[in-house]
Amino acid sequence: MPHGHYEDVRITGHLIDSGIMSRIMDDVVALDGEFETVSFEVGRTNEDVSVALLRIIGHDEAHLDRILGVIGQLGAEPVDPSDARTAPAPADGVFPDGFYATSNLETAVRVGGRWIPVSGSEMDLGIVIEDGAAHTVPMADVRASEHIVVGHAGLRVRPLERPRDKQDFEFMNSEVSSEKPKALVIRDVAHMLKRVRERGQRIIFVVGPAVVHTGAAAHLARLVRAGYVSVLFGGNAVAVHDIESALYGTSLGVSMEAGMPAVGGHEHHLRAINTIRGCGGIRQAVKQGVLTEGLMHTLVSMDIPYVLAGSIRDDGPLPDVITDVLEAQSAMREYCQTSGACIMLSTMLHSIATGNMLPASVTTVCVDINPAVVTKLADRGSFQTIGIVTDVGLFLEMLADEVERR
Amino acid sequence: MPHGHYEDVRITGHLIDSGIMSRIMDDVVALDGEFETVSFEVGRTNEDVSVALLRIIGHDEAHLDRILGVIGQLGAEPVDPSDARTAPAPADGVFPDGFYATSNLETAVRVGGRWIPVSGSEMDLGIVIEDGAAHTVPMADVRASEHIVVGHAGLRVRPLERPRDKQDFEFMNSEVSSEKPKALVIRDVAHMLKRVRERGQRIIFVVGPAVVHTGAAAHLARLVRAGYVSVLFGGNAVAVHDIESALYGTSLGVSMEAGMPAVGGHEHHLRAINTIRGCGGIRQAVKQGVLTEGLMHTLVSMDIPYVLAGSIRDDGPLPDVITDVLEAQSAMREYCQTSGACIMLSTMLHSIATGNMLPASVTTVCVDINPAVVTKLADRGSFQTIGIVTDVGLFLEMLADEVERR
Amino acid sequence: MPHGHYEDVRITGHLIDSGIMSRIMDDVVALDGEFETVSFEVGRTNEDVSVALLRIIGHDEAHLDRILGVIGQLGAEPVDPSDARTAPAPADGVFPDGFYATSNLETAVRVGGRWIPVSGSEMDLGIVIEDGAAHTVPMADVRASEHIVVGHAGLRVRPLERPRDKQDFEFMNSEVSSEKPKALVIRDVAHMLKRVRERGQRIIFVVGPAVVHTGAAAHLARLVRAGYVSVLFGGNAVAVHDIESALYGTSLGVSMEAGMPAVGGHEHHLRAINTIRGCGGIRQAVKQGVLTEGLMHTLVSMDIPYVLAGSIRDDGPLPDVITDVLEAQSAMREYCQTSGACIMLSTMLHSIATGNMLPASVTTVCVDINPAVVTKLADRGSFQTIGIVTDVGLFLEMLADEVERR
Amino acid sequence: MPHGHYEDVRITGHLIDSGIMSRIMDDVVALDGEFETVSFEVGRTNEDVSVALLRIIGHDEAHLDRILGVIGQLGAEPVDPSDARTAPAPADGVFPDGFYATSNLETAVRVGGRWIPVSGSEMDLGIVIEDGAAHTVPMADVRASEHIVVGHAGLRVRPLERPRDKQDFEFMNSEVSSEKPKALVIRDVAHMLKRVRERGQRIIFVVGPAVVHTGAAAHLARLVRAGYVSVLFGGNAVAVHDIESALYGTSLGVSMEAGMPAVGGHEHHLRAINTIRGCGGIRQAVKQGVLTEGLMHTLVSMDIPYVLAGSIRDDGPLPDVITDVLEAQSAMREYCQTSGACIMLSTMLHSIATGNMLPASVTTVCVDINPAVVTKLADRGSFQTIGIVTDVGLFLEMLADEVERR
Repeated sequence: MPHGHYEDVRITGHLIDSGIMSRIMDDVVALDGEFETVSFEVGRTNEDVSVALLRIIGHDEAHLDRILGVIGQLGAEPVDPSDARTAPAPADGVFPDGFYATSNLETAVRVGGRWIPVSGSEMDLGIVIEDGAAHTVPMADVRASEHIVVGHAGLRVRPLERPRDKQDFEFMNSEVSSEKPKALVIRDVAHMLKRVRERGQRIIFVVGPAVVHTGAAAHLARLVRAGYVSVLFGGNAVAVHDIESALYGTSLGVSMEAGMPAVGGHEHHLRAINTIRGCGGIRQAVKQGVLTEGLMHTLVSMDIPYVLAGSIRDDGPLPDVITDVLEAQSAMREYCQTSGACIMLSTMLHSIATGNMLPASVTTVCVDINPAVVTKLADRGSFQTIGIVTDVGLFLEMLADEVERR
Repeated sequence: MPHGHYEDVRITGHLIDSGIMSRIMDDVVALDGEFETVSFEVGRTNEDVSVALLRIIGHDEAHLDRILGVIGQLGAEPVDPSDARTAPAPADGVFPDGFYATSNLETAVRVGGRWIPVSGSEMDLGIVIEDGAAHTVPMADVRASEHIVVGHAGLRVRPLERPRDKQDFEFMNSEVSSEKPKALVIRDVAHMLKRVRERGQRIIFVVGPAVVHTGAAAHLARLVRAGYVSVLFGGNAVAVHDIESALYGTSLGVSMEAGMPAVGGHEHHLRAINTIRGCGGIRQAVKQGVLTEGLMHTLVSMDIPYVLAGSIRDDGPLPDVITDVLEAQSAMREYCQTSGACIMLSTMLHSIATGNMLPASVTTVCVDINPAVVTKLADRGSFQTIGIVTDVGLFLEMLADEVERR
Repeated sequence: MPHGHYEDVRITGHLIDSGIMSRIMDDVVALDGEFETVSFEVGRTNEDVSVALLRIIGHDEAHLDRILGVIGQLGAEPVDPSDARTAPAPADGVFPDGFYATSNLETAVRVGGRWIPVSGSEMDLGIVIEDGAAHTVPMADVRASEHIVVGHAGLRVRPLERPRDKQDFEFMNSEVSSEKPKALVIRDVAHMLKRVRERGQRIIFVVGPAVVHTGAAAHLARLVRAGYVSVLFGGNAVAVHDIESALYGTSLGVSMEAGMPAVGGHEHHLRAINTIRGCGGIRQAVKQGVLTEGLMHTLVSMDIPYVLAGSIRDDGPLPDVITDVLEAQSAMREYCQTSGACIMLSTMLHSIATGNMLPASVTTVCVDINPAVVTKLADRGSFQTIGIVTDVGLFLEMLADEVERR
Repeated sequence: MPHGHYEDVRITGHLIDSGIMSRIMDDVVALDGEFETVSFEVGRTNEDVSVALLRIIGHDEAHLDRILGVIGQLGAEPVDPSDARTAPAPADGVFPDGFYATSNLETAVRVGGRWIPVSGSEMDLGIVIEDGAAHTVPMADVRASEHIVVGHAGLRVRPLERPRDKQDFEFMNSEVSSEKPKALVIRDVAHMLKRVRERGQRIIFVVGPAVVHTGAAAHLARLVRAGYVSVLFGGNAVAVHDIESALYGTSLGVSMEAGMPAVGGHEHHLRAINTIRGCGGIRQAVKQGVLTEGLMHTLVSMDIPYVLAGSIRDDGPLPDVITDVLEAQSAMREYCQTSGACIMLSTMLHSIATGNMLPASVTTVCVDINPAVVTKLADRGSFQTIGIVTDVGLFLEMLADEVERR
């Protein structure tokens, strides 16, 4: 008979080979709690699910509640659930104490004895209950006296299990180091993108300026024309250097033809920005015949949207850049919820920002030549993320070839 | 007798051992121009300056003008100077075509036959002439019909020569790799900071969140208390994790005591942000007794200003964060012109942003464990920049020890 | 009733929270086999061990044998074991086909119905049975007609479980990134070394030349004098640069005093080598009064052994360097079996070589400023390895301070 | 009239734009000497050479000699040269004190009033005078009483000037970062290799195991078949993993087809080694029909030589590996003197070893995904070295395509 307060939880799934059982046990112990295995029905073959019933023991109610909150995010549900509790937001932009912070997994909340789904899977938000429905809300957007879920009771999270059969691609869930063969990976990425498109889901490309510097913008434009880019996320730099390349043949002053710094060329990007500012924006520059080629031109011509988010290091910036970062987040957020895949290319800042807003179910591919960046991006808790350490220029060229070949 | 258009320029200084003469010749040839050495008086000893007279030859006036613009930034002045030309800005936020883009070096402009200094040395801005005075202006801040300098005529730049005698510190102008002895460097940095302070100049610290994660915020706070920090530049993250550390004892969920991720601790930073939002801001939280320790608390207590610039990846953010990046740039800009030293710690984004605004004469020290970041930051054309590849946590501890020892 | 051939295996231990059960299931499936859970007795609390009985099913005997071989290394033993099989080595330096390749875990082999321990835990060797005893043997050292174990039958491996209670140090089994606090780690490493020494086990230091370049050789020498270094492994370079530093005050031509490259100093290491060659070796140079300070001098004075292994990039080399790499491996091997801890400092080549020879039970600490090196070294399958991304110079200074403080 | 001892030296060439004049002045000052410019005839246009006459002043003869030695390596020759001095080697493998250490530049030595060329340009060796001829000798190979050049008198070095016109390829003398366009670089490398082959010079490929892991060995084999590889330098690992790939379809246990670790596959490389040891070596394995594909098979079939140098971390090793590192150096050395180009692919150890033996005139291309490796290799004082930061697998595929297209 356990001392202290306890609650029985049920866990269902491929508990052992998904590693979930092990993580739950670890977390209970790490939080200074205890557990007893009440029952454990192991699936006989590797097709069958297992069901475990654990008794979780804490020092007091608060301790127990904290443990249940943590293991709840791994799918452990109380055998006898109660309704979720809410509290009013004390002021605009402030959550009540003890607010429930969302994961990016599919979540349901129990209201009036019924489980209702929470719309808008995104990490680190709050949950508003309104007219019997539930949706996530960013801290900055909450309004005073809205009903916000607090505590961990009455919440159910469906963890992503590690896929037993390879789904979208073979390299699923692993990092592809610089020492692995790349041709196979590129084939799989192309295949995955095709499937996402066939399902009618959006494909987000998050793009850093290195894509332009490496001469790969032309290959990305081929992907745009082939219909594989639903929206482009980036900053001032990627657009500026693409436009510089279109107007002056250089990127950050380096000639795209000769590969050498053009003397005096470092000013080109400033003149490019000034030219577009004079036109009133990128779309206007295309319409006025000032901008006639390049990635941004291709996006405008194909009517593909883009979100350019401002950063403290921007020159200019271009009129299209959203200089307020909260507004820029809002602009990106709406695309994130309806996407099926996200390709992150050589930008840590915008990739982390995007990754923070993506539901865990979105297949995400991060490509960078720096293994530390790939590790940081790939290691964000989703089973659907793959990191590829390679030269983004050569990667895009081969991906565009592969896509066109199909 | 040269074909094409030409102009004679004079160059004065330690032309050979500073490498300036070599760079001028290279640039002329790279721009497809020619030069003839009209005269070259070499200083007899390594104390004497040299004076060279070069005839620069271009294909036509425009070509010649372009060459003169580039080598003008290296200190080559026409023997017979003319006045600078100006043109009105065509619209708010737009420079006239052919606007002169500034370097971060001391610059003078010739107006009515007189050389007048340009105030506000900063890269990539324009120059406004107003009431017989000249000052730099960011592209976004120019107003329609202001008189902006165009072309390269009538401009004089004083290049920084490589110091013949070591000035501020011994490692001047070199990158300190991870394989070099660090104790000496730290001693020199401490000495340099002391001298800058004695000259009454500001010391800017640009700080990334790794400073908190590594447990070094306490050592930075020691530098604040010792009077070595005039202003802190950073983003939401560094302040959030410092406050998380003060409120919960974790940084990004990692216990500062045990060094282990606290289970469930990844939410701490959200709760910390929410708490400060509830107070109305960091200063208010200090006043209300909510925030009682840490780096931000020390800054507020010592009345040291800080600029927190927003980024697209921010959670929250804290109310103190300036979410519009142009406003944030303006807030940083005013400190940059009056500083004597700038220490950049483990943040590429904010360091590049700051570096873009600093006059070349400001001694800048970049510290990061990633050599690629250090190279990128140190390699920005100033002779006063030093990059140090090391562990920022251990660096700050030793720097604070060194400063306190003096 | 399973199709195909099967064998029942028993697995005992903290199966779920150690992750071993999950790895066994994964491996069976990855090898295209099947399993059924015959029984699974789960420990009721997190103190109790679990016992699982799995039926492993393969296509045929060879397939089944292959699966049993792989999961045998994770501790799965056949319920009805048979004796190990052996075959004679066909020639000197050649193992028989199908030879059993060792792991670095504690291993036993069944001979004549009895389990006998295999001495010399080291990865990737063969096992010789001789006079009723078993020991490991490197491929190059096997002699024709020795009895070598083949296949996987009759072998038992004891896997290292993840320690439930922190043993040697708190950071056990995790990589310490550059963004974690280091002071705690250093305290733990000092504590661990003390415990290893109290147990009477050896401490191996594997040292690259960066230790000298960073000025940290003096701190390592303090550890030698404090009795924390039982043997030093390295190459020509670390010894050469230490001696260069003693004779000329430079390391790779860089002044240890001023931190600047001494002009013409790149020859110093050649002259240092030539001087020691003239003496006949390092020990002779110490005895003749030619070498009077530095790390190598300290080792010789304290009578601490060192193994300097040759490499293709060596200048000279010093007479003490073992230029044949197989001989060098033999010299290192004997120390590896009796060590309790191994500290690897800024050398990938010698660290990998040493890691290959260490039993899994040896606590290993890898320190390097390059996270890719740390990841590569730490990720070698032992639960007793910790990687620390930091500046090795500052690390050694603080570790020596910590050790002396105790 | 200068105090102290002095000597007048003449320097001829493109002194200013090559930067040589500046380096000489810097070095004199850094060595605490002084100089006076006696005369300086500057070439009038950028086609003409300049001639400078400098008076170099030292504290005493020894100091002056040291300065002359350093600037002699930059091409400064005494106006009144004397003969070189020699001293007998005191023992086998030991140079006399004050021995002249070679650069990798074209060198001449003055004997009996005549300048004779020194054969065998390689860094850090000694010079033997024998029968009126001069050649370099490694420290380990010198025999007692051979006549070795000492001091700096009577030596003349021809520095490589930075090429005024692009010679072998456009990117000459610059590092190609991961952010530069690669297609151009690859075209230039292909062009350069073609020119070297047409001149009848050797092309050395230095190859690390990542070439096999990335699946690029097949592309390198295409270059072998196209006649672009004269000799391959590598270690045990590259050959082992290529053979593992041929025999088992894996490289370091990772399937080359599926890109996934084959379970149990980490033993494959051991079995591959054992198999080749059983055959007696790689050539024998090809002849016996055991090894029928892959890079090593292609080399043997095309009768292209290879040098496999042993390292302390080798498993096995293969019988073809030269386990004594001094023997391995000798085997590599003879190819280095007759080569015209050297391509270094993903191996720091073997690349540094090879770079140490190459004359400065050999065009060297280093390819690695790690910018730190490229910087270290490219930064070794030769104007003919280019570093390329990219994915070696994709690089080789494109290079082979480019070569076959021609």
